[in-house]
Amino acid sequence: MAVGLGFMAAKLQMLSTSDHASVVSMNLFVALLCACIVIGHLLEENRWVNESITALIIGVCTGVIILLVSGGRSSHLLVFSEDLFFIYMLPPIIFNAGFQVKKKQFFVNFITIVMFGALGTLVSCGIITLGVTQVFKRMDIGSLDIGDYLAIGAIFAATDSVCTLQVLNQDETPLLYSLVFGEGVVNDATSVVLFNAIQSFDLTHIDSRIGLQFFGNFLYLFLASTLLGVMTGLLSAFTIKKLYFGRHSTDREVALMMLMAYLSYMLAELLNLSGILTVFFCGIVMSHYTWHNVTESSRITTKHAFATLSFVAEIFIFLYVGMDALDIEKWRFVSDSPGTSVAVSSILLALVMAGRAAFVFPLSFLSNLAKKNPNEKISIGQQVIIWWAGLMRGAVSIALAYNQFTRSGHTQLRSNAIMITSTITVVLFSTVVFGLMTKPLIRFLLPHPKHTTSMTLSDPSTPKSSTIPLLGGAQDSEVDLGGHDIPRPSSIRALLATPTHTVHRYWRKFDDSFMRPVFGGRGFVPFVPGSPTERREPQWQ
Amino acid sequence: MAVGLGFMAAKLQMLSTSDHASVVSMNLFVALLCACIVIGHLLEENRWVNESITALIIGVCTGVIILLVSGGRSSHLLVFSEDLFFIYMLPPIIFNAGFQVKKKQFFVNFITIVMFGALGTLVSCGIITLGVTQVFKRMDIGSLDIGDYLAIGAIFAATDSVCTLQVLNQDETPLLYSLVFGEGVVNDATSVVLFNAIQSFDLTHIDSRIGLQFFGNFLYLFLASTLLGVMTGLLSAFTIKKLYFGRHSTDREVALMMLMAYLSYMLAELLNLSGILTVFFCGIVMSHYTWHNVTESSRITTKHAFATLSFVAEIFIFLYVGMDALDIEKWRFVSDSPGTSVAVSSILLALVMAGRAAFVFPLSFLSNLAKKNPNEKISIGQQVIIWWAGLMRGAVSIALAYNQFTRSGHTQLRSNAIMITSTITVVLFSTVVFGLMTKPLIRFLLPHPKHTTSMTLSDPSTPKSSTIPLLGGAQDSEVDLGGHDIPRPSSIRALLATPTHTVHRYWRKFDDSFMRPVFGGRGFVPFVPGSPTERREPQWQ
Repeated sequence: MAVGLGFMAAKLQMLSTSDHASVVSMNLFVALLCACIVIGHLLEENRWVNESITALIIGVCTGVIILLVSGGRSSHLLVFSEDLFFIYMLPPIIFNAGFQVKKKQFFVNFITIVMFGALGTLVSCGIITLGVTQVFKRMDIGSLDIGDYLAIGAIFAATDSVCTLQVLNQDETPLLYSLVFGEGVVNDATSVVLFNAIQSFDLTHIDSRIGLQFFGNFLYLFLASTLLGVMTGLLSAFTIKKLYFGRHSTDREVALMMLMAYLSYMLAELLNLSGILTVFFCGIVMSHYTWHNVTESSRITTKHAFATLSFVAEIFIFLYVGMDALDIEKWRFVSDSPGTSVAVSSILLALVMAGRAAFVFPLSFLSNLAKKNPNEKISIGQQVIIWWAGLMRGAVSIALAYNQFTRSGHTQLRSNAIMITSTITVVLFSTVVFGLMTKPLIRFLLPHPKHTTSMTLSDPSTPKSSTIPLLGGAQDSEVDLGGHDIPRPSSIRALLATPTHTVHRYWRKFDDSFMRPVFGGRGFVPFVPGSPTERREPQWQ
Repeated sequence: MAVGLGFMAAKLQMLSTSDHASVVSMNLFVALLCACIVIGHLLEENRWVNESITALIIGVCTGVIILLVSGGRSSHLLVFSEDLFFIYMLPPIIFNAGFQVKKKQFFVNFITIVMFGALGTLVSCGIITLGVTQVFKRMDIGSLDIGDYLAIGAIFAATDSVCTLQVLNQDETPLLYSLVFGEGVVNDATSVVLFNAIQSFDLTHIDSRIGLQFFGNFLYLFLASTLLGVMTGLLSAFTIKKLYFGRHSTDREVALMMLMAYLSYMLAELLNLSGILTVFFCGIVMSHYTWHNVTESSRITTKHAFATLSFVAEIFIFLYVGMDALDIEKWRFVSDSPGTSVAVSSILLALVMAGRAAFVFPLSFLSNLAKKNPNEKISIGQQVIIWWAGLMRGAVSIALAYNQFTRSGHTQLRSNAIMITSTITVVLFSTVVFGLMTKPLIRFLLPHPKHTTSMTLSDPSTPKSSTIPLLGGAQDSEVDLGGHDIPRPSSIRALLATPTHTVHRYWRKFDDSFMRPVFGGRGFVPFVPGSPTERREPQWQ
């Protein structure tokens, strides 16, 4: 949207008509995106492949073709751009995740999720750093200092929440989905915070004061980011409720929701907070309040438009990573010693697996100890899936690796080239191989997911809203949380079974008495003919 | 979306985290967009102001504030970028216009529209060039050659279709809307073609051969662009019909429609055709075929999502032009002789008015001669409004002016600086002053537009779909064109009254027998439970 804003330094002489080469590459890219969607659709029924893997493979194939066409000189159609990723692609994905997440599931497991996401990432980072320090020193890969080792830890502690979204199903395995995905969001934030801390703190003498400062910094970031997201969401709800845009224009409502969601992310970036956390909570608040203040058509539009934007951004990222992977310049330094590169990648993969195992199983054990109801405990099979589903590394890792190892022109160093190519190798391998095996693994470990997972939701609504034409997941999750219009047995039973039900009940009371009258939500919008705000049964099934 | 593609030349060293200043400006920009939407909503009932003018004024005010805060040194938050405008902002606006246009109105008046758009632009360009050549030679504004004079003609012959969309109402004045807007689309294309021809042809010796070549070039561009748009639209309809995406995912359908629409624009740019014409016809074909092949929720989503994107892009452009106008560097060269600048701007405004008058009234007269039915003739009042509504100059003029007068570093020339600032002055003045007066003028000249315009449509559907919650303009226009389910009196009468009704009938026959079975459209999609493709009466009014 605000594409040219980065061009500020570019003066008038750069304002000639757009470069022919960039038009060619945009055409190619849009055409490939279309191809990915069509092929992804055709492979829908396939039990191995998902859309991410398709996009990644198409991207790599395109890279190969470009390499061959250009005579082996370059596949330099694209260079991975951090800005593009963090400023334009990630926000819609994470916002949509917050917007469509089953809020009840998420908040019931909140403590476990934060433990996995924050503590787990620290453990994982520590183990990877330790392993790398021990092993790499003995190998011939050039000069790396303590800061680099810690950065490698942070880079490979960042799981790929985008890929997780495609591998797990919110309806088949709601508990697993909320745990793994929720962890992914917190983990993304933790990794970025960790990484920034590593780059800015003086690492030559680490003491308890710096450790405490680091912890305080993390806590501040977490709370401030969440608060900012909640505030922006509430502001949008309040604005739309007070002005009642629906009277005039669906377009205005949709535009305002979109812009304010994006504003929350950019504000967080401006204040050096975690935009990922902010936009995630903004999405949750918007789906809880704002979404119920708009007209019926705005609801359908936002629901599907956000999902579509997120979907396209996901495919875009995987296509992009795939095409970027073949960039010949990166591999030039590695080609004389392919053995080292393979060894480094293998070590990193092993450390990723060990680092994740080191926190998933102990933390699951602790989480199980705290729960009385046996249905709520995380079974061994589920633990293995949680461990496995978080092994994939994605665009966040690549972005962080570029940031660390291509700064201030020392790209030409052997060690940096090896780290970049190893990161790409790990990302490609983990996404394709681990990704391909996730669906079969789930089927093997949880033969009937509907029965083994706890708190199965009563209505078979899909989060990606693919089969239900009009009213889908977000509203259903709303009903699950509120659940007071029609006391449905399964919902009530689940509510009573959870130990957090008292917190829920207080929250609901607070929500009904104070929040909803101000910020809207289901049941408090004045009924205006022509703008139905009450839920209606979909006419068509 | 494909933001970073332009950065190809930028190597790895540029891939550091995003610039702080650009984050600040993006925040400011998104916040201002939100403000524009809210203020535009509050001024909805105002009879003078529209959203464009609000955005323009807010943009100028922000420019002033930045200028004051930075101590008069710079309002350099943004520099107008042609790429941003032509590659990201214009396509959604024009596509949405095609997608939501009342197709029957458009095609009934097709010949008149093309005459106005193509011939009219040439006449307008000729008169402005002639006037400028005569007057500017006697003034002290530096060296301008024949190419510059012709370019000035092309720059100021480009009307602002974006502003037109906001000033005229498709339901109140359907004939005027389709004439002025349709003209605007053809005019945009003609101006860009004209401008490119002026820049590439050797202008020192113009003879009949070059004239013929120019005419052939224009005809080729017009036909090839239209064909490309139609083909892309049909391809999308065919793909979605054959694969029947709806079975699986609304997101895929919406994504594919969006991406293919954009692809048509980029393909046209790649082939040096007119992307504006291509994406406009792609929008028409998509709303006629593709839109009827998707699920109900996809229809609602695309309808409103495209309208919202277009809406945001429109506001963005006006805000952007407003903020850019105050850029201090442009005005430095003019400040020593403000009289010259005012004189140049006034002359240009007068020429724009004269140039437009020179073709609107004669061509309307010709058009009226060809029509037998007095109801269809363009009355004098309507002619005045057509003349007036096309006087506004917008972002296309600014983009072309930047292209002509800031090339190859000769920005420092006095004549170029004067031309740039004069263009901005004309754009600001015409948009604000002429724009403010359009609504009152229409009310004055056409006191009861419903009765004076011919072929008033029977259902009060709005193209911008603001009041009807579920099924709006695009489908209604479909019914108007098809019109064979329920023979509605007014529609039939209008059909019989037009001399083109035989063409329409043949087209409908051809459409029903050959096109719809292949490309879908209303009534040919297999009915699948859960994906209603038949039109239903909206439950809620």
